Amino acid sequence: MTTVGEVSRPSRVADPDEAISAEELQLAARNHGIPLEALRYDVTPAGLHYLLIHYDIPDVDPATHTLTVDGAVARPLALDLAALRERPRVTHRVTLECAGNGRALLHPRPVSQPWLVEAVGNAEWTGTPLAPLLREAGVAPEAVDVVFTGADHGVERGVEQDYQRALPVADALREEVLLAYEMNGAPLLPQHGAPLRLIVPGWYGMAHVKWLRGITVSTEEFTGYQNAVAYRLRRDADDPGEPVTRIEPRALVRPPGFPDFMSRTRMLRPGPCTVDGRAWSGHAPVMSVEVTTDGGANWAPAMLDAAGGDWSWRRWRFEWSPEPGRYVLGARATDASGRTQPVEQPWNRGGFANNLVQRVEVVVVAE
Amino acid sequence: MTTVGEVSRPSRVADPDEAISAEELQLAARNHGIPLEALRYDVTPAGLHYLLIHYDIPDVDPATHTLTVDGAVARPLALDLAALRERPRVTHRVTLECAGNGRALLHPRPVSQPWLVEAVGNAEWTGTPLAPLLREAGVAPEAVDVVFTGADHGVERGVEQDYQRALPVADALREEVLLAYEMNGAPLLPQHGAPLRLIVPGWYGMAHVKWLRGITVSTEEFTGYQNAVAYRLRRDADDPGEPVTRIEPRALVRPPGFPDFMSRTRMLRPGPCTVDGRAWSGHAPVMSVEVTTDGGANWAPAMLDAAGGDWSWRRWRFEWSPEPGRYVLGARATDASGRTQPVEQPWNRGGFANNLVQRVEVVVVAE
Repeated sequence: MTTVGEVSRPSRVADPDEAISAEELQLAARNHGIPLEALRYDVTPAGLHYLLIHYDIPDVDPATHTLTVDGAVARPLALDLAALRERPRVTHRVTLECAGNGRALLHPRPVSQPWLVEAVGNAEWTGTPLAPLLREAGVAPEAVDVVFTGADHGVERGVEQDYQRALPVADALREEVLLAYEMNGAPLLPQHGAPLRLIVPGWYGMAHVKWLRGITVSTEEFTGYQNAVAYRLRRDADDPGEPVTRIEPRALVRPPGFPDFMSRTRMLRPGPCTVDGRAWSGHAPVMSVEVTTDGGANWAPAMLDAAGGDWSWRRWRFEWSPEPGRYVLGARATDASGRTQPVEQPWNRGGFANNLVQRVEVVVVAE
Repeated sequence: MTTVGEVSRPSRVADPDEAISAEELQLAARNHGIPLEALRYDVTPAGLHYLLIHYDIPDVDPATHTLTVDGAVARPLALDLAALRERPRVTHRVTLECAGNGRALLHPRPVSQPWLVEAVGNAEWTGTPLAPLLREAGVAPEAVDVVFTGADHGVERGVEQDYQRALPVADALREEVLLAYEMNGAPLLPQHGAPLRLIVPGWYGMAHVKWLRGITVSTEEFTGYQNAVAYRLRRDADDPGEPVTRIEPRALVRPPGFPDFMSRTRMLRPGPCTVDGRAWSGHAPVMSVEVTTDGGANWAPAMLDAAGGDWSWRRWRFEWSPEPGRYVLGARATDASGRTQPVEQPWNRGGFANNLVQRVEVVVVAE
């Protein structure tokens, strides 16, 4: 067992009664979600934004880092960070969510990073728009995909690779797609892609390539691992599936009251309280949020705060005055495209784009 | 089941064959360790330092936050952040480690936050020394303990509480103990105790009270939950045990090569490479680090870089030139007090102060 293919094993789905494995725990220990109380912040502070790192955080020297633009272009380019910083500068507030969010709650459970519901964050990304740079390079009329390559290197399901993801040309040319070098007004942190990453507002996290070092325009559809194998909605291993793209609508409840350390069950005193949270969708603006306090049997409308921008989550509030007892809180977002959240789990083999309604157990304590 | 005591259950040890529970995974998803490749940084960047939050991150307004000093003192004090910032300012580089680091690798496994080996970080903490403030308040000669109270509130093993930890008076008066308001040159982040936390160099993390709002000098030994119940080295539930205090020596290997996504097994090409990592102890300076590549059967000395300060981890390096094959790397630190790391697990019911040698599986690939 001394070849890459022998060490790195195929993807799998857990047996029906299989508990969380040591390997899943190991991934949970290094990748991390937003602590749900941090849904209180409009902009997620450094270190509280979710983080999914496929391999290792690479050691990239910003002083010598160069971004190349090549492939099917008229004028290949190479830009260092100083050159990128001299270009037009814009900031977008963007909600990022991991495509695998909610995976560990699925039955049966796809075995990978075991997210519960917390793989999300909302940050201000500053950089320069990609589209003008591509236009300067001169994208060939027959171009199909634009491939983004990061500096992170590893093995995944037997395939040794630098992390690479492609966007269709039309998506790469959207005006809001950024080459970002700052997050929340500070230089990118190592774990968020320093010194340069892609930001594709509205898309799940896998598209926002970190430690970006190369952009290659291709006249053929990209068949690399992360597009053709990993991030696809499949029923089974033989299904070619559909690509994972934009973020499905989701609302999260900021758990009210205070927690039990071990179970994280919430305790709350009786009486009036405001329950709040955030809602987002990568398809269209969030139009409504409904709240349940009985695990989905009944729903009531929440109040929506003003929108925080085209790509940012939106705060919602719900006035509640519970008697002592046990409750299961959840919230359901609906966007302007008519998409909403299911109360029965959607399922695919990778556990992607799962926006099942959250369940927050709350005990309103009599004492 | 609508009282705090019914919802919050006693501590327990897992059955011999019991897998990681949903509750442990939930804790792992919100608390997080240092990704081991981040051992490359002398000072751990924001967001990569380990984090253990007993309850929720509280919402503390720095503009109105006040620290009170009361109890057995001649002159009770109340200071806001501006007043604390006007006092003498010092910076210490301090390695912090969670007392529960390594818990999830123990057999049998104490059921709590399921750390593997990554609950550590090294940061620069800036603030004002505590001792002069206590002297100004005038600590009563008969004082025994100094109790530190945070703004975080929750339930733990049936006990509703604000987080509180006491230090013996002599430890509270050590010159290096800080009231810290900055980390790595920036204001404290919410998750690290903003706007004020205690720093007790050399002690495990539970002593470094976050969101610090009160200091109470007591003429009796403090019997609060975190001192008398939680952080004790016990053989069984009836053993009163010994308090958890200073950090036992530990070395960690920065895993060489590149990882497999799912198993995190490391792959490496044959030939010369430098293996490195960090070593620390809260008892005395690290004097030596030894490295094993065969899971502990044989050991060879590592080179130590210059020390990074009295309370900071120290870098070590080891030249290695492996042939293809499978290896298990580990490192063992010994400090000037003669303390070192075991290759057989130490065990106590809380899984505290466990400094068992790490095991890093490396496959040197032939291809």
